[in-house]
Amino acid sequence: MHPVETQVRVRYAETDQMGVVYYSNYLVWMEVGRVEYCKAQGFNYRDMEREDGAFLVVVEAECRYTAPAFFDDEVIIETRVLESRGRSIRFGYCMRNAATGQLLATGSTKHIICGANRRPRRLPEKYRAYFPLK
Amino acid sequence: MHPVETQVRVRYAETDQMGVVYYSNYLVWMEVGRVEYCKAQGFNYRDMEREDGAFLVVVEAECRYTAPAFFDDEVIIETRVLESRGRSIRFGYCMRNAATGQLLATGSTKHIICGANRRPRRLPEKYRAYFPLK
Amino acid sequence: MHPVETQVRVRYAETDQMGVVYYSNYLVWMEVGRVEYCKAQGFNYRDMEREDGAFLVVVEAECRYTAPAFFDDEVIIETRVLESRGRSIRFGYCMRNAATGQLLATGSTKHIICGANRRPRRLPEKYRAYFPLK
Amino acid sequence: MHPVETQVRVRYAETDQMGVVYYSNYLVWMEVGRVEYCKAQGFNYRDMEREDGAFLVVVEAECRYTAPAFFDDEVIIETRVLESRGRSIRFGYCMRNAATGQLLATGSTKHIICGANRRPRRLPEKYRAYFPLK
Repeated sequence: MHPVETQVRVRYAETDQMGVVYYSNYLVWMEVGRVEYCKAQGFNYRDMEREDGAFLVVVEAECRYTAPAFFDDEVIIETRVLESRGRSIRFGYCMRNAATGQLLATGSTKHIICGANRRPRRLPEKYRAYFPLK
Repeated sequence: MHPVETQVRVRYAETDQMGVVYYSNYLVWMEVGRVEYCKAQGFNYRDMEREDGAFLVVVEAECRYTAPAFFDDEVIIETRVLESRGRSIRFGYCMRNAATGQLLATGSTKHIICGANRRPRRLPEKYRAYFPLK
Repeated sequence: MHPVETQVRVRYAETDQMGVVYYSNYLVWMEVGRVEYCKAQGFNYRDMEREDGAFLVVVEAECRYTAPAFFDDEVIIETRVLESRGRSIRFGYCMRNAATGQLLATGSTKHIICGANRRPRRLPEKYRAYFPLK
Repeated sequence: MHPVETQVRVRYAETDQMGVVYYSNYLVWMEVGRVEYCKAQGFNYRDMEREDGAFLVVVEAECRYTAPAFFDDEVIIETRVLESRGRSIRFGYCMRNAATGQLLATGSTKHIICGANRRPRRLPEKYRAYFPLK
């Protein structure tokens, strides 16, 4: 499956006194990528939580930073599923400068599926087609 | 009643590319001040939400910035209640550099008391002593 | 002059445990609105800082919250200039739910023009046409 | 060398609609831990940037989340140096609930030393004693 692309524009709020994007904000962009990934598959993550009581709880996150992002840059976030099991999903991300194509960062997040009670559960039936075992 | 004082140390994450604290973070510090104000009165705001289903929902916030705060500065937040009615409370804040005493910002927030359903409600009986009419 | 419209989609990161957008994030959205306002006038705020050493330093901010914004909502930010002098500019903002048109918040920010040394200065000549006295 | 301990109290701003701390905030706490680590060695990271033009630029970050942190929890951050070379440093972090001792998350960050021009440089002589090769 092709990665799903989405874009964010760097906010002033996301920069720090080094004049570049502060490192934790890339994890927020990964979230933006995941949400868009779901929409591209045909569902809203919001509804998965609200209507089906299934939450993608983050258990691991990692990011490698290769070049800085600056205020007002357009950043392309490419999101894909690296691994999908009945109880966990791993997403991979590639972030690039939209104007130059330069690679800014790569990363991944691993999630377990939990219920509203924060206990692990299996991915509801209807979402399995969106996350085929892999 | 005396204002309640608490301190925060400026985080790198809170600075922006101007080399100073980004303006929205002062509203986060006001929250830190409010939470500490409650503790100083003898209760935890966390319990007010959890156990009594009373939420202080922000309806207005304002801040005047008089001097910049820098990374690693200690900031004193003075919090007081400016106005207290059965259904709303207004807090006032003064933020100062702890080392120099310099005034950094002043502000206020107005809150209405809501239930878990986000509908306005009266402040529960047991909290009225903490917020005498004013 | 007509207000300039831009949109943001609510990020999970922007919500809090009340299930709605945390109040300081509206100030970040105002920044997004300001930056877009500049682009709509024909210049980039980034260049104003970088090339002309003119910084819009926030001296006041206020926001009135009328309805909550939720995760994944599209929010329209309308930005206009309320007041413009040689040394200060005040922006006004209206934030609405894009799907329903519901008003979420209104606010304003006042800025003084400063140099890279954080000292007040006049708005550089070339930007005066973008901010006619008002 | 013993790890350096510091504490943060969970802010409302740091929670999300799952009712727990949003995952990117742990990277901010790691920064708080690093800054405190430097102070415990006898210098301020702020001065390392300001006076010696040496910046610890993050090139990798990773975090494993083992238990959620909640609003108003006190969190202990243990910080240590895992690896130290002439041009890079790796910090390790352990985050625990201060009241219960429960492990919340572990993680690490890798930094290269850069000058104000964002080019790699060697750690200035005077800081080598603080970061012995390892």
